[in-house]
Amino acid sequence: MKKIVGIIAEYNPFHRGHAYHIKKAKELANADCTVVLLSGDFVQRGAPAILPKHTRAKMALLGGADIVLELPSFYASSSAEYFARGAVGIFHALGCIDALCFGSEEGTITPCMETAKILVEEPTAFQNTLKEHLKSGLSFPSARKAALLVCYQKQSSLSRDEHFLDSPNNILGIEYCKALLSLNSAIEPITVKREGSSYHAQKLTDSYPSASAIRQTLAKPSQTEFGQATSDSFDFSLSALWKQVQPEAVAAFSRNFSKEDFLTEDDFSLLLKYKLMSSTPQTLCQAADMSPELAQRILNCLNEFRSFSQFAALLKTKELTRTRINRALLHVLLDISADLPSRTPGYVRLLGFNKNASGFLKTVQKSASLPLLTKAADYKRLLPKEEVPVFEKDIFVSNLYQSVLNIKKQTAFTHDLQKPPVIL
Amino acid sequence: MKKIVGIIAEYNPFHRGHAYHIKKAKELANADCTVVLLSGDFVQRGAPAILPKHTRAKMALLGGADIVLELPSFYASSSAEYFARGAVGIFHALGCIDALCFGSEEGTITPCMETAKILVEEPTAFQNTLKEHLKSGLSFPSARKAALLVCYQKQSSLSRDEHFLDSPNNILGIEYCKALLSLNSAIEPITVKREGSSYHAQKLTDSYPSASAIRQTLAKPSQTEFGQATSDSFDFSLSALWKQVQPEAVAAFSRNFSKEDFLTEDDFSLLLKYKLMSSTPQTLCQAADMSPELAQRILNCLNEFRSFSQFAALLKTKELTRTRINRALLHVLLDISADLPSRTPGYVRLLGFNKNASGFLKTVQKSASLPLLTKAADYKRLLPKEEVPVFEKDIFVSNLYQSVLNIKKQTAFTHDLQKPPVIL
Repeated sequence: MKKIVGIIAEYNPFHRGHAYHIKKAKELANADCTVVLLSGDFVQRGAPAILPKHTRAKMALLGGADIVLELPSFYASSSAEYFARGAVGIFHALGCIDALCFGSEEGTITPCMETAKILVEEPTAFQNTLKEHLKSGLSFPSARKAALLVCYQKQSSLSRDEHFLDSPNNILGIEYCKALLSLNSAIEPITVKREGSSYHAQKLTDSYPSASAIRQTLAKPSQTEFGQATSDSFDFSLSALWKQVQPEAVAAFSRNFSKEDFLTEDDFSLLLKYKLMSSTPQTLCQAADMSPELAQRILNCLNEFRSFSQFAALLKTKELTRTRINRALLHVLLDISADLPSRTPGYVRLLGFNKNASGFLKTVQKSASLPLLTKAADYKRLLPKEEVPVFEKDIFVSNLYQSVLNIKKQTAFTHDLQKPPVIL
Repeated sequence: MKKIVGIIAEYNPFHRGHAYHIKKAKELANADCTVVLLSGDFVQRGAPAILPKHTRAKMALLGGADIVLELPSFYASSSAEYFARGAVGIFHALGCIDALCFGSEEGTITPCMETAKILVEEPTAFQNTLKEHLKSGLSFPSARKAALLVCYQKQSSLSRDEHFLDSPNNILGIEYCKALLSLNSAIEPITVKREGSSYHAQKLTDSYPSASAIRQTLAKPSQTEFGQATSDSFDFSLSALWKQVQPEAVAAFSRNFSKEDFLTEDDFSLLLKYKLMSSTPQTLCQAADMSPELAQRILNCLNEFRSFSQFAALLKTKELTRTRINRALLHVLLDISADLPSRTPGYVRLLGFNKNASGFLKTVQKSASLPLLTKAADYKRLLPKEEVPVFEKDIFVSNLYQSVLNIKKQTAFTHDLQKPPVIL
């Protein structure tokens, strides 16, 4: 019996650690096909992806993925809970995914699954401790963490320390398990131990560097004189990244970077300022991840705005993480409203596939209980009426990304609806 | 008896032809003081002024003006009729302006005044010819021109040919006279013959070059490598421009340009694209100077958008001038709605004055029947309630200009309300 394994990813950008994960996912799930659900042009940390979605899809296919689908924009830029709920919801609705494989620090599924169970079932001990800590003034994430630690101590099988709950990979993993439990899904969660650099590592020294380290390396030369003084060491770093990955993926990647065809949040600075200048506390509060306090803070600090990243850093407080602020700002810019992320996924779009996997693509299309758009331009015919404006938001978001890139580079614009899936 | 002469101007940028006009205006009006009503940060051709309003005000003061006031943004970026109506309305409301002096090709006031009379009084011959030509399918400006030529033939004193109606200076002059007649104003219209380059001249060869020629010269080096290869000939051209103008004005001008502290419409390309992408035919049609046909054309051509200027050129048709299109696009960007320009001016802001003219400033403040804001930050206290949102639009518009400049140059932002008048 042929098996299909699902992976939820951003590939921002794709690197050899991701290729390793795809390979291990296939092995662990004993699968013949990998379906990747990829964030579109904006990612969970509330920023544009460094490369457009079709480029990242192509790199993933070159790196071993068989089918790449797009996670709709409002899940892709949501907090971990909604991100996971949307992504797992889509895999569940595909009706043919046997396993979901994600990276974790431990490489064993039990701690994630057990934690997820506590969070879904909310036993009395958990509820009481949570309430107590919230009353004492702890923020929700801190109170929840404290309540979880109490539950761990009560169950001897769960000897987790608090560091387990500090890793972004583990947090996402727990959310995936929660979503699977909530849906009572038959998809089996499995996990690959993360190798090499930690999630936030900023240096390119490890054999498996983080995407974050790659972005840092890429962003720096563009701020000085890209292609000149720094390019030698830059090329060297990049080539080191790509051992074990097909040379075509490296080529796709290098093409974009040599032309400076990549975006950071600061390419959206002017748009954000314009949007914020046109906002009131009321209109700001309609955006997902916004709070009345943050809205007021944004308007109070607006005269100090110099760039997207500088402004997000300026707004940071003890209570608000930088990611949360970035997301709130991004949601203002993209007009992503607070009520969107909690809805159930209503469609999924094909970004690319491997010709060898076209049989699997047919299986997926057959078994899916939600529309799989293989030709985006057909959306009005294929989507239920209520999904049309939601999908149009995805199109707007991608067109905005493309516009910023095109105006920056003075190149021709291609409408997102005109972009066919990548076929390898 | 001391006399005050008024000048309506854009000074985009200020040059020696403008200094000559100020000098002649004082002579012809036998005036002791010149009050300039200056367009703010956006000008009548539907584009940002190349330099911020306070810089242009300073140059005007250095070039001989005594008091500089700001023409509110929605008049400044309106068609000739509303532009003139707003500007003359302000001068009339100041209650102490003796003469209004504008440039014309002929240098005599009679043809402008007589034409204005025909347009205000609309004699039967005019009305009939206008109707006839409109029926035959001519556009309104062409039909009006034809009807005027018929009236000229009937009045032997008016031996004007059609070229008289082709000059933008004359068209504006006629509109000023129309506005004075409509208001039954005691302000005497006088005119200075335009010397040197024609309004649209693109070359810097004449002794009195056009502002348009200067902008062209300035825009070019910034598109290549400003300050390098082209800078020698550029400096040479600029210094030629400035003979007869105080060296301080040249210095103010050169400082901005050496730092590339100037804006063209293409610095607003990304903002315009974003705004157009977020628009519908209905929302577009709320903007001043928009028509349903133009709105539809804009949305149909949106995928071909590469920059503000390229898009405006692309949209040009036989029926629509480039200026009209630029204005419609600018009004979309600035949210300047179709109902604004037809209102009566409700305030005027002081941009700068010459200390020697502070006595005149007191005269102006005393006699004015509308609030003269000398400290912009006091606007809520000084303006009638209904003028507050109108003035706030001016502030928004200037802050947007400043934001684009600051984000382009990565310099600090100063809120428009914090900018005091320039005092020389």
